Amino acid sequence: MTIYNFSAGPAVLPKKVLETAQSELLNYRGSGMSVMELSHRSSLFDEIICSAESLLRELMEIPDNYKVLFLQGGASLQFSMVPLNLAQGKKALYVDTGAWSKKAISVAKAISTLDVEVIASSEDKSYNYIPELPQTVDQAAAYVHITTNNTIEGTAYSTIPNFGKVPVVADMSSNILANDYQVTDFGLIYAGAQKNIGPAGLTVVIIREDLLNQTAIFAPMLDYALQVKSNSMYNTPPTYSIYMAKLVFEWLKDQGGIPSIFEKNKEKAKILYDAIEKSELFKSPVRSDSRSLTNIPFVTGNVELDKAFNQAALAEGFQNLKGHRSVGGMRASLYNAFPLEGVRAFVTFMEKFESEQGGK
Amino acid sequence: MTIYNFSAGPAVLPKKVLETAQSELLNYRGSGMSVMELSHRSSLFDEIICSAESLLRELMEIPDNYKVLFLQGGASLQFSMVPLNLAQGKKALYVDTGAWSKKAISVAKAISTLDVEVIASSEDKSYNYIPELPQTVDQAAAYVHITTNNTIEGTAYSTIPNFGKVPVVADMSSNILANDYQVTDFGLIYAGAQKNIGPAGLTVVIIREDLLNQTAIFAPMLDYALQVKSNSMYNTPPTYSIYMAKLVFEWLKDQGGIPSIFEKNKEKAKILYDAIEKSELFKSPVRSDSRSLTNIPFVTGNVELDKAFNQAALAEGFQNLKGHRSVGGMRASLYNAFPLEGVRAFVTFMEKFESEQGGK
Repeated sequence: MTIYNFSAGPAVLPKKVLETAQSELLNYRGSGMSVMELSHRSSLFDEIICSAESLLRELMEIPDNYKVLFLQGGASLQFSMVPLNLAQGKKALYVDTGAWSKKAISVAKAISTLDVEVIASSEDKSYNYIPELPQTVDQAAAYVHITTNNTIEGTAYSTIPNFGKVPVVADMSSNILANDYQVTDFGLIYAGAQKNIGPAGLTVVIIREDLLNQTAIFAPMLDYALQVKSNSMYNTPPTYSIYMAKLVFEWLKDQGGIPSIFEKNKEKAKILYDAIEKSELFKSPVRSDSRSLTNIPFVTGNVELDKAFNQAALAEGFQNLKGHRSVGGMRASLYNAFPLEGVRAFVTFMEKFESEQGGK
Repeated sequence: MTIYNFSAGPAVLPKKVLETAQSELLNYRGSGMSVMELSHRSSLFDEIICSAESLLRELMEIPDNYKVLFLQGGASLQFSMVPLNLAQGKKALYVDTGAWSKKAISVAKAISTLDVEVIASSEDKSYNYIPELPQTVDQAAAYVHITTNNTIEGTAYSTIPNFGKVPVVADMSSNILANDYQVTDFGLIYAGAQKNIGPAGLTVVIIREDLLNQTAIFAPMLDYALQVKSNSMYNTPPTYSIYMAKLVFEWLKDQGGIPSIFEKNKEKAKILYDAIEKSELFKSPVRSDSRSLTNIPFVTGNVELDKAFNQAALAEGFQNLKGHRSVGGMRASLYNAFPLEGVRAFVTFMEKFESEQGGK
């Protein structure tokens, strides 16, 4: 049985990448060592981390005045690092678009010296849309924090707002490398790797150099400027995850890069959204202008029926479709590595299930 | 050519572990998914992390009143987390036995509210011994921090000091699972995985539950109590590294556990120390009562000769022998996975090199 893995993260990886990792696992390029066994100070690993950075720069067209960091701790640690580094003595502005935005806001608020303001929210409608943002914001603010894609609620920004001198800081964990965002629209981008980049345990940060903190943070591991100065090697980085990310970046380049994968992602999402629209059984809880390409929740409106659907889907090899407990129903995560044929097979299965339920 | 990898970390892993990882890489237990692709909330991953914890508990005989955490950020992040969580309003005591102790001390000192005191140091002799410790310390102190094994300088504690009510906190990164320490001698143990546990990017923390912070830390990711409450899943943990750690723990159990590996480590170290003692070319910079089993530096006293030795060794497949820049010469890291036959082959090579140099 073919398995299609709809997990929201850690998520499906390109098969070709896993095959390369498998073939090199005991002996990387004739070294007689696994990548996991390489010293992070070795020339072999140096080549891996440098390639990973240069491939990411090429794929995302990252200008030279942006630094790229390979860190640990996931987006959750960035929730603390961003305000600690960027908002020293300044106000921090947040847009509240879902569970992860909410966490970012509450972690920022836990810093006693920080003045946090939420400038827009879609909480009034269970976060089922991206709210309109104010045309202007306090130009003395440190940043406006947004979540470009809301993994749980299935919403995404199609255009990135501009707040003049105030930089946009983005949690891009669930659609980095999947949308055609321009890096120059952001002051700082961060993303946990476990959706579109590689295995869990790696966090990518892209920061415009003028935003680097001028004064040291008390905890060296949380200090962007120090991590930049150390080329992400203030201490031992997650070497194997960086190697996997490099393989994923190579694969993505082979796919034609972001313009090409973005078209494929739109095609995959359209097939599923069209099936949901056509259906009389399933519906999308998300307002049509705010829908994510990478995370697509849908419900029947009947908890028992959702459960029956999930069980039937699992029996056919459609894994990890159960919706997040806060939304319920189903959620299909269609990251870059999720194959088009998997979406087609799944839509066929949805139609079959619906007809068996006596739907149209 | 057989490769023997003397890297100080990331370091050699058991071949059997790498072979299992390779065979399961694309299809873990018939799931059709890689471990890297498993949701951290899936039952398959739950079984992995629970097994990893229970194997570690069994190997180290960790009592029930100690919690085990699988975190990120390495020992360097623990340098901040330990004082933030444990020393709220209390004095923190440190023993300075080398480069990593020194870092731990300087990171603790960077916390402006913290009162840090160094109670013993071996800096006077380039850290080539473990200093005598005071019989008594201020019983109101939060902890005494020690580094059980000094990776760079090649020293280790053979017995763990006792300071009455004041718990010992240990950075055990480079000899966890390699020595026969008793967990009950410590209040908290932390270790980066990349030496004796698995790939870089995983940090193990073992904490006695009465030491868990009662008040929350401003950064949730740095909060031991919250991480305990979340079973190391406050956010997505480094799933693949935890899987690799589980495989290493299984391997170690198959080897007879810690009593058996400790004997093997003593045997491996003795072969190398005896060769150094016997030699007229090489010498150990470390005082004989303080020598590490896992990291063995040695020098010729001649920088050019050290270089020639390292080059000749490399040509014979002995990798990563170059000593840390602060000590120079050579360093052989003999972690659990380093094979006995590798030490024998290396000692033979040392003798050959010495005789070619006109040594005895």
